[in-house]
Amino acid sequence: MPKLKKKALVGIVMGSDSDLPIMTETARMLQQLGVSFDIEITSAHRSPERTADYARSAAGRGLKVIVVGAGGAAHLAGVIAAETTLPVIGVPIASSPLGGTDSLFSTVQMPGGVPVATMAVGKAGAVNAAIFAAQILATSNGSLSRRLAQHKREMARAVAEKSKRLKREFRL
Amino acid sequence: MPKLKKKALVGIVMGSDSDLPIMTETARMLQQLGVSFDIEITSAHRSPERTADYARSAAGRGLKVIVVGAGGAAHLAGVIAAETTLPVIGVPIASSPLGGTDSLFSTVQMPGGVPVATMAVGKAGAVNAAIFAAQILATSNGSLSRRLAQHKREMARAVAEKSKRLKREFRL
Amino acid sequence: MPKLKKKALVGIVMGSDSDLPIMTETARMLQQLGVSFDIEITSAHRSPERTADYARSAAGRGLKVIVVGAGGAAHLAGVIAAETTLPVIGVPIASSPLGGTDSLFSTVQMPGGVPVATMAVGKAGAVNAAIFAAQILATSNGSLSRRLAQHKREMARAVAEKSKRLKREFRL
Amino acid sequence: MPKLKKKALVGIVMGSDSDLPIMTETARMLQQLGVSFDIEITSAHRSPERTADYARSAAGRGLKVIVVGAGGAAHLAGVIAAETTLPVIGVPIASSPLGGTDSLFSTVQMPGGVPVATMAVGKAGAVNAAIFAAQILATSNGSLSRRLAQHKREMARAVAEKSKRLKREFRL
Amino acid sequence: MPKLKKKALVGIVMGSDSDLPIMTETARMLQQLGVSFDIEITSAHRSPERTADYARSAAGRGLKVIVVGAGGAAHLAGVIAAETTLPVIGVPIASSPLGGTDSLFSTVQMPGGVPVATMAVGKAGAVNAAIFAAQILATSNGSLSRRLAQHKREMARAVAEKSKRLKREFRL
Amino acid sequence: MPKLKKKALVGIVMGSDSDLPIMTETARMLQQLGVSFDIEITSAHRSPERTADYARSAAGRGLKVIVVGAGGAAHLAGVIAAETTLPVIGVPIASSPLGGTDSLFSTVQMPGGVPVATMAVGKAGAVNAAIFAAQILATSNGSLSRRLAQHKREMARAVAEKSKRLKREFRL
Amino acid sequence: MPKLKKKALVGIVMGSDSDLPIMTETARMLQQLGVSFDIEITSAHRSPERTADYARSAAGRGLKVIVVGAGGAAHLAGVIAAETTLPVIGVPIASSPLGGTDSLFSTVQMPGGVPVATMAVGKAGAVNAAIFAAQILATSNGSLSRRLAQHKREMARAVAEKSKRLKREFRL
Amino acid sequence: MPKLKKKALVGIVMGSDSDLPIMTETARMLQQLGVSFDIEITSAHRSPERTADYARSAAGRGLKVIVVGAGGAAHLAGVIAAETTLPVIGVPIASSPLGGTDSLFSTVQMPGGVPVATMAVGKAGAVNAAIFAAQILATSNGSLSRRLAQHKREMARAVAEKSKRLKREFRL
Repeated sequence: MPKLKKKALVGIVMGSDSDLPIMTETARMLQQLGVSFDIEITSAHRSPERTADYARSAAGRGLKVIVVGAGGAAHLAGVIAAETTLPVIGVPIASSPLGGTDSLFSTVQMPGGVPVATMAVGKAGAVNAAIFAAQILATSNGSLSRRLAQHKREMARAVAEKSKRLKREFRL
Repeated sequence: MPKLKKKALVGIVMGSDSDLPIMTETARMLQQLGVSFDIEITSAHRSPERTADYARSAAGRGLKVIVVGAGGAAHLAGVIAAETTLPVIGVPIASSPLGGTDSLFSTVQMPGGVPVATMAVGKAGAVNAAIFAAQILATSNGSLSRRLAQHKREMARAVAEKSKRLKREFRL
Repeated sequence: MPKLKKKALVGIVMGSDSDLPIMTETARMLQQLGVSFDIEITSAHRSPERTADYARSAAGRGLKVIVVGAGGAAHLAGVIAAETTLPVIGVPIASSPLGGTDSLFSTVQMPGGVPVATMAVGKAGAVNAAIFAAQILATSNGSLSRRLAQHKREMARAVAEKSKRLKREFRL
Repeated sequence: MPKLKKKALVGIVMGSDSDLPIMTETARMLQQLGVSFDIEITSAHRSPERTADYARSAAGRGLKVIVVGAGGAAHLAGVIAAETTLPVIGVPIASSPLGGTDSLFSTVQMPGGVPVATMAVGKAGAVNAAIFAAQILATSNGSLSRRLAQHKREMARAVAEKSKRLKREFRL
Repeated sequence: MPKLKKKALVGIVMGSDSDLPIMTETARMLQQLGVSFDIEITSAHRSPERTADYARSAAGRGLKVIVVGAGGAAHLAGVIAAETTLPVIGVPIASSPLGGTDSLFSTVQMPGGVPVATMAVGKAGAVNAAIFAAQILATSNGSLSRRLAQHKREMARAVAEKSKRLKREFRL
Repeated sequence: MPKLKKKALVGIVMGSDSDLPIMTETARMLQQLGVSFDIEITSAHRSPERTADYARSAAGRGLKVIVVGAGGAAHLAGVIAAETTLPVIGVPIASSPLGGTDSLFSTVQMPGGVPVATMAVGKAGAVNAAIFAAQILATSNGSLSRRLAQHKREMARAVAEKSKRLKREFRL
Repeated sequence: MPKLKKKALVGIVMGSDSDLPIMTETARMLQQLGVSFDIEITSAHRSPERTADYARSAAGRGLKVIVVGAGGAAHLAGVIAAETTLPVIGVPIASSPLGGTDSLFSTVQMPGGVPVATMAVGKAGAVNAAIFAAQILATSNGSLSRRLAQHKREMARAVAEKSKRLKREFRL
Repeated sequence: MPKLKKKALVGIVMGSDSDLPIMTETARMLQQLGVSFDIEITSAHRSPERTADYARSAAGRGLKVIVVGAGGAAHLAGVIAAETTLPVIGVPIASSPLGGTDSLFSTVQMPGGVPVATMAVGKAGAVNAAIFAAQILATSNGSLSRRLAQHKREMARAVAEKSKRLKREFRL
């Protein structure tokens, strides 16, 4: 998936390469919306220094939003949010036998003072993390805002289109 | 709780006046961070038109972020996110016998295409919704960004202070 | 699945075409009971206007009952119930990594004032939505009421038949 | 709570007198909507014959809808639905240490063939059972249908009124 | 699976023929312990009369214990326990998208007065229902009691045997 | 609560004296049914030898059934069932912050080979443990069997009585 | 609670002073076992640097074991375990509306490579964290090992004593 | 998997040979860290005497730590912890239809006085049990402590390496 070498506005981080099939959805949707990003693997538990360095330097490197995907006791988003005032978006990934409830609770139940904006578990959440990152950037970027409005209209149109096809199948 | 008559940047919405004891925390933290807001009650289910009107007109009225608190089958944040491309932050409120899991799942499990940035259930989430809203605004507002950094330092200082007091009690 | 062009009494709605394998069961059972229906895809989040239009015009178009299938943060049934006083029946669909608990809670935990009659998660619920819709119509339709009673007797007979076969296998 | 001696259209049933504080809400809302009802205690487990008699004779006595409240392993609604083709509405009651999840699952997860229209756990569900019963009756009763529409408008008005008051408190 | 034509002491009942792969385990273990049984399909919801007849006549037909397997809103064991004072053993079966929690809660959370002795969800529970039925019968049957003690010793021996084999694989 | 010095047929065991308010219900119901019992505190974890001694000697001392109440990681019933072929009935007690789900799962999810007959969480379960113990004994005791049938009829009568009173309150 | 000024072997850490009522149990039990400790408040999210400093310097300061109490998205134990190879014991605290499941999942579901030894939620877990820390130290400290064995015997004796008292109350 | 015949310091125990695919991970990681172990199958429920013998003799045979894997109503770790003051590490295994929550709750929710150090459900937990056992031994073994530190550095390096590869794929 090649990407233009624009300065990244969104940082995508994941705790393990096994999270890639999910977090690829974030990358794909950011590309579709024309938002530049970089991508990184770093673990809250296996590479804590690297993670802290990433988070502390994020604003300085020009990132505006960080999207974090992690599973199990998903601490990564919270640990990054602890080290930056950039908005951090968390994507819980269902990677343990507990089926995603552990990742969701670990990501969302942050204490007062350090928010993580949590998305749905899995692919839907990874897609939405990209859209939400774009919505944040669009608060000061009219052209991105228009692209988001356009994407919204297309979604509505796609629903209507699918409905029409369904009705034909049922001969209604 | 009086508030300066600045043009509101953040809209606080709740589904019922019984949500006020929680959502007051959002208002209080926004004031502390110097972010202007307005506040509204509207229900996804009992006043759907009013809710759609609110969401559709939000950007035009100058709102940049919407914070939504709701309990039970908490549809309000999702329903507002359906009608605007502004970032919508959801605060699940534990108001039914199911104890907040219902509100959390109803708020966070949005389908691909329409994100709701979900915070922790209850007061911690309401406080964090304010901070997250400020973090969004701070992506294009250096002075707010500095206030957030300052708030972060104060939190760290407060922890150290409490630890010192605890050690004294234990005579360590 | 062809259908006679009678004026539809039951509206089947689903949030996405991925819900069709479940919601087909509703269509099939309504046909078996001789109840006319139409079918539609519309999303609470991706096509909110279309959804509101559908709900507001439902009674005027002659619909008597609406059956709604949706997964994840399943807001669709609640959102439709907000816009009509027709009885709305919700079928939670297990489509996210959380396995159906999210859809069930999002569908059933409606606030006082706006009921959604919730069925079991998945296929059993989709079948029952059809039967329940017929039971509603049968409150003022004696012939349909007799067909339902007939269906009930056939279910009892089928159980007895299966039991007899089982006993033969065990040579009892 | 006195009631006019009209022939009952809705039967309210509960498994135990400890369910009365919840199920009273159904009675109150039916009265408010002008729908006649009778009320009964019968247990799926402690008085099974009485329960079967109740269910089998319900249609003959003129009942059009049955509302059932029960807690724990809440079998009562299902057991009644097994014996009648009248629409049965279930209200799960949170009466065990498991906090209502047990009642909800026991009420809603009915097998294909025998639906129970499940409402929210507790008081919200009891209120909504009344409204849903009225919505069923209104499918063939225009004046009741108008009362329901009126009730819907009043709910919307009440929300707007509360919002206005809230804004005054915040001096917005 | 042929069976001697002794008068049945244990009745095995299941709600649907889809429960057979689980409930076969009960039959197999009863045979292994030399306990006579009969087997029946009857549904709490689809064949309520047949179910009540079964339960009321059970003691008269010489049954001493009833084992009941059911899934989803698993009412069958409770409904049978309502109609007899014979000991009723419930086996929750994981047959719905909710994965067995619904069957477990529906089987075990019986109100004071009408017990159902609940076993583990699925096959382990079906095996144990047979052993528990035998333990009940063994309270007045010394030879069966000795067979159970023998079975217990064999289980312990089998564990020791497997451990020895494992140690060999690891060359310990 | 004095008790006749008959030879105990049922052993009541609990893991801690904090379980007594629940397990007293078992004692009370056994007395009401005229079944002799003894009572003991022993912990699976804090007094394992005492627990094993209790279980191994139970049959020899004339006990026919053992009722076990325990909370949290409720191992006591399983540990006793491991050491005897007497029927063991488990009562899960809600004593931890997890609210009873932990006790229920720890009691019921026994592996194939060693059943624990699990009752509802808390007081309802403690009452039912007594009734179920009596049902076991009644498989070879006609007079106890008649007392159980009598108790069942009284429960049904009590329900009818309460219903009559309720109807009077509502003037139906 | 005064304490001898021995060099601390166990570090007690908690995320907030609101966790003190629980974590005091760890301190009390360590004192009872004669194990020296120090105590600290530091937050994974509000004071991340302080937390990392604490963890990195722990071994150098002579600590042998770290006990960590935290609630909600309880990341503190995992974050400390990421920075040290000392054994880290986690005590989940039930401090959010989700009732402790969130803290338990966040503490226990650590990825392969970085263990946190998780105790029960709440006070039982805090007591056990102290005992487990002592068990770790006792692997190379015979006198502490004897104290633990002594404590185990006392627990067994206390159970027997309570049982005797209970029997007297029941006149058995 | 051959192993040097050093005197075992860690005992690996599992309740059934079906747990081997998980518990092999503990053996493999202990080998990688150069820690000697032995391995055993014994069941809390099917071979209670063997289990008690194992636990009581463990310290005498030179074991310093015991790692226990079990599923369902996972009593094995608690039962072993009841009979020894050696540190006991529990690995919950997801082997029942309830998907691991039952094993986790049964392992972790131990009463005050008898700790079980609980790891994550499944393979991650089995790996971590080995590392945690080594961390315990390393509190009095400098060379093992250095190997653990080395392993930690390698994990961090592996994360960085994977991240580099990922960036290349995305051409960043």
